[in-house]
Amino acid sequence: MSKTNPGNFFEDFQVGQVIEHATPRTVTEGDRAAYGSLYPTRFAIPSSAEFAASVGLKVSALRGPVVVEEHPVEELIAFHIAFGKTVPDISLNAVANLGYAECRFHQPVVPGDTLSTTSEVIGLKQNSNGKSGVVYVRSTATNQRGEVAIDWARWVMVHKRDQTAEAPETVIPELDAVVDPKNLIVPKGLDFSSYDFTAAGEPHRLADYEVGEKIDHVDGVTLTESEHQQATRLWQNTAKVHFNAEARPDGRNLVYGGHIISLARALSFNGLANAQLVAAINAGAHTSPAFAGDTVYAWSEVLDRAELEPGKNGAPGIGALRLRLVATKGRDESMTLRGEDGKYAPGVLLDLDYWSLIPA
Amino acid sequence: MSKTNPGNFFEDFQVGQVIEHATPRTVTEGDRAAYGSLYPTRFAIPSSAEFAASVGLKVSALRGPVVVEEHPVEELIAFHIAFGKTVPDISLNAVANLGYAECRFHQPVVPGDTLSTTSEVIGLKQNSNGKSGVVYVRSTATNQRGEVAIDWARWVMVHKRDQTAEAPETVIPELDAVVDPKNLIVPKGLDFSSYDFTAAGEPHRLADYEVGEKIDHVDGVTLTESEHQQATRLWQNTAKVHFNAEARPDGRNLVYGGHIISLARALSFNGLANAQLVAAINAGAHTSPAFAGDTVYAWSEVLDRAELEPGKNGAPGIGALRLRLVATKGRDESMTLRGEDGKYAPGVLLDLDYWSLIPA
Amino acid sequence: MSKTNPGNFFEDFQVGQVIEHATPRTVTEGDRAAYGSLYPTRFAIPSSAEFAASVGLKVSALRGPVVVEEHPVEELIAFHIAFGKTVPDISLNAVANLGYAECRFHQPVVPGDTLSTTSEVIGLKQNSNGKSGVVYVRSTATNQRGEVAIDWARWVMVHKRDQTAEAPETVIPELDAVVDPKNLIVPKGLDFSSYDFTAAGEPHRLADYEVGEKIDHVDGVTLTESEHQQATRLWQNTAKVHFNAEARPDGRNLVYGGHIISLARALSFNGLANAQLVAAINAGAHTSPAFAGDTVYAWSEVLDRAELEPGKNGAPGIGALRLRLVATKGRDESMTLRGEDGKYAPGVLLDLDYWSLIPA
Repeated sequence: MSKTNPGNFFEDFQVGQVIEHATPRTVTEGDRAAYGSLYPTRFAIPSSAEFAASVGLKVSALRGPVVVEEHPVEELIAFHIAFGKTVPDISLNAVANLGYAECRFHQPVVPGDTLSTTSEVIGLKQNSNGKSGVVYVRSTATNQRGEVAIDWARWVMVHKRDQTAEAPETVIPELDAVVDPKNLIVPKGLDFSSYDFTAAGEPHRLADYEVGEKIDHVDGVTLTESEHQQATRLWQNTAKVHFNAEARPDGRNLVYGGHIISLARALSFNGLANAQLVAAINAGAHTSPAFAGDTVYAWSEVLDRAELEPGKNGAPGIGALRLRLVATKGRDESMTLRGEDGKYAPGVLLDLDYWSLIPA
Repeated sequence: MSKTNPGNFFEDFQVGQVIEHATPRTVTEGDRAAYGSLYPTRFAIPSSAEFAASVGLKVSALRGPVVVEEHPVEELIAFHIAFGKTVPDISLNAVANLGYAECRFHQPVVPGDTLSTTSEVIGLKQNSNGKSGVVYVRSTATNQRGEVAIDWARWVMVHKRDQTAEAPETVIPELDAVVDPKNLIVPKGLDFSSYDFTAAGEPHRLADYEVGEKIDHVDGVTLTESEHQQATRLWQNTAKVHFNAEARPDGRNLVYGGHIISLARALSFNGLANAQLVAAINAGAHTSPAFAGDTVYAWSEVLDRAELEPGKNGAPGIGALRLRLVATKGRDESMTLRGEDGKYAPGVLLDLDYWSLIPA
Repeated sequence: MSKTNPGNFFEDFQVGQVIEHATPRTVTEGDRAAYGSLYPTRFAIPSSAEFAASVGLKVSALRGPVVVEEHPVEELIAFHIAFGKTVPDISLNAVANLGYAECRFHQPVVPGDTLSTTSEVIGLKQNSNGKSGVVYVRSTATNQRGEVAIDWARWVMVHKRDQTAEAPETVIPELDAVVDPKNLIVPKGLDFSSYDFTAAGEPHRLADYEVGEKIDHVDGVTLTESEHQQATRLWQNTAKVHFNAEARPDGRNLVYGGHIISLARALSFNGLANAQLVAAINAGAHTSPAFAGDTVYAWSEVLDRAELEPGKNGAPGIGALRLRLVATKGRDESMTLRGEDGKYAPGVLLDLDYWSLIPA
């Protein structure tokens, strides 16, 4: 019998099935630097241990026999690592990554934390063509203390191994379109009451953003062949199409969708420098493939603003800003999401809906 | 007199000569991350401090006045660094790297360790053309405590500076074709008796591998120009052909052979996830050059299995698996090493014979 | 009002104006590894914690509640980070970076240090065309203790937003052509009296270098598209021309001048391995643009030698060597800086004048 992992096919999944993914992965300061070399990120909390300390986010951690203090890495580093673990079991035979929902960041991840991911199958729906089906999973990344770091739902279209295999009972999970702001988790100790706007790079706070406002983040980055592959490897994501030019008929390496998320988030610093933390991802769609040579731009739309609840998730000086983050191939100064036909405009690569934490 | 290093030529070497190589190099967590961005590695011990701890490999180390606990980096990080040091003195004027033998990993290398390398010339043989000769060296990498981390023999063909220089007495060292398994060194404290196969990614243990069995590792990686150069620089390897397109008549940068070793080893995770540690390299040949644009695949052949000796190098739950690791340009599902003429099959890039430690 | 940063234009600057730049940035071991993957550096102090300790440069630092010992990163890592901070405010709308002067490194920067940069406008001169002007700033990078890490002057030509805006009073600061060696700052504790020349890689000390001597560093590196972008991002340098192929009419990404400085400095190891520390940059000019595909070489000219003053900046076994570091596109074995017309020779990319500290 072959010793290599063929990945799961649609008929290998059952609702209720729990999969513990290999391999646990320790986050390091090396990841922070690698991330910084791959994306033009400048958010002050992950950039500066001192800034993080000034907002209560220098976290004490045990390293062997001593207590050290570490500051958080970008939430997306943790997300990509946690997500990468699921690929060999969930999406190695995927046709497409269809969506995300209910992704919450439960606590900051710091260098030295080790992440493991488990997924539960929460829904299945065979496609009418009988060749594939949609698998819904809820994945949970835990740290070395067994605490939840991130959880999220996603659904992917997966090939069937055997097209004659019987269709499972259709189960479609109910997933919230948006994480209710009262369920957002504010990191323990976070305090924006003495927030240094000068050090952070911009003066804008929650009240300065109007619902419906759009922000053109101006800057663009031309993708090279190397960076996206380095990133995707760093997250131990094994999807063949990203690395192996022979795996696609066109001989091109498809850029990992998460690479575009990180790139767009980094570009959004210019106009959203104070949207410091990603608290939740409400929804996400990779609407078009990206390749080396494409120049990626980003724009954001303010979808909502929320006060957090004192005595529940409220914390000093902190509010929540719901944003649509759109990545485009080529700059679209008109910031058009969809054409008149209701379909995504041609250059749109990513439509991501998330909650950030920002000085109130 | 020129202040730059012209490297040694064949007639500069004498049997018994000892060369202390510059520059010592401290391994860091940054190297682990860089390695992870360059190779698709997922072996659980270097990936996870928690997994390493669970098999006895979280090593206490002094960092200034405090004791910290670190977990090992991949053996090949240490090997490439140790090897890189030898290049300016041994192989700057090499025509070809001919072989390796008797390479043993004496102890895990952890971030904070500083490696220095010394080489002794153990053999010389001038080629009949009078233009070059073979230099045999035994190199030893030691850490900051003066303990041996790795040692190995290699032989390289080196240009003569002056073709009229007299040939030295021919000395050809006796080198073992295979490291005797009773001489393999098991890291202190290593214990696979509570090994977590789920976390590690595969269920296979020593007894599941049959001598003669071949494993197609399935996945491929297309080389880009940037990654191999970044890797080779990281190891402070100064061989011109890797970085300088003007150094070769064809204007192409030759990929460092060690890059192919690391790539193939990382690809071998898919089928050999539990071949956790590299204990020894018995032999290695770079059989064909690799360049950016090549898509590299790997397959392995089980050459031997060995129990370790209780009371000597035996340790709980640990066995040794001898593997041939073959890297190919383009996938060869037939896994053919040599053609009928006895020569390496056209796509073969690497033929590496090594011992790994695996749950027994 | 737009929330994105348009950068400052010429008429936005006033002499005496002080700008605190975002975002503070913590240096990590990851930066050291990234730097090592991007430049072929082998200087012993940043390469080896043990070598650094042997010359008195293992620095005690507070990390949360414990004292750890760290060794310095390359001065240029600190410089690029500190410099990158100034770009969004000073040179986002720059036509050209015209020069540097009076750059001094006040103390080694170690992992864990957080750098912030402040600039003061010290001069202004509108160009006669009325379309742009020269802005002179003195920038100061401080660490988390508020101590100066680096300071330097530079002047850049910046576009006017409004060509009809009135010209400011011309103020041209007096800047020293060369940092007086008695003002060089020797790191506290530095002691070269037991310097290990073998470990460092070369036998040459201060007295071995003659004023006027030129050293061809021999080795070349062919630039790829990816490395220079990774480097420049790592320093959080946001100048569009480096990343965005659509930002220039020719569709090519301009290589950050600092990338060429680091590359040339790393290449200079071969012949200047003991010019261990950069103490000051006297002047620097990026004389020609560089692009992916160019093969970069370096040569140096000895401009001066200086003994340091006992009781002032003197320290055991340490002298100062003033060097001109020249990067060229293509190797120029004649090491010609300027043609007969007094202009820089065609292949010259960089002309950097600096003081290094070297065993006396």
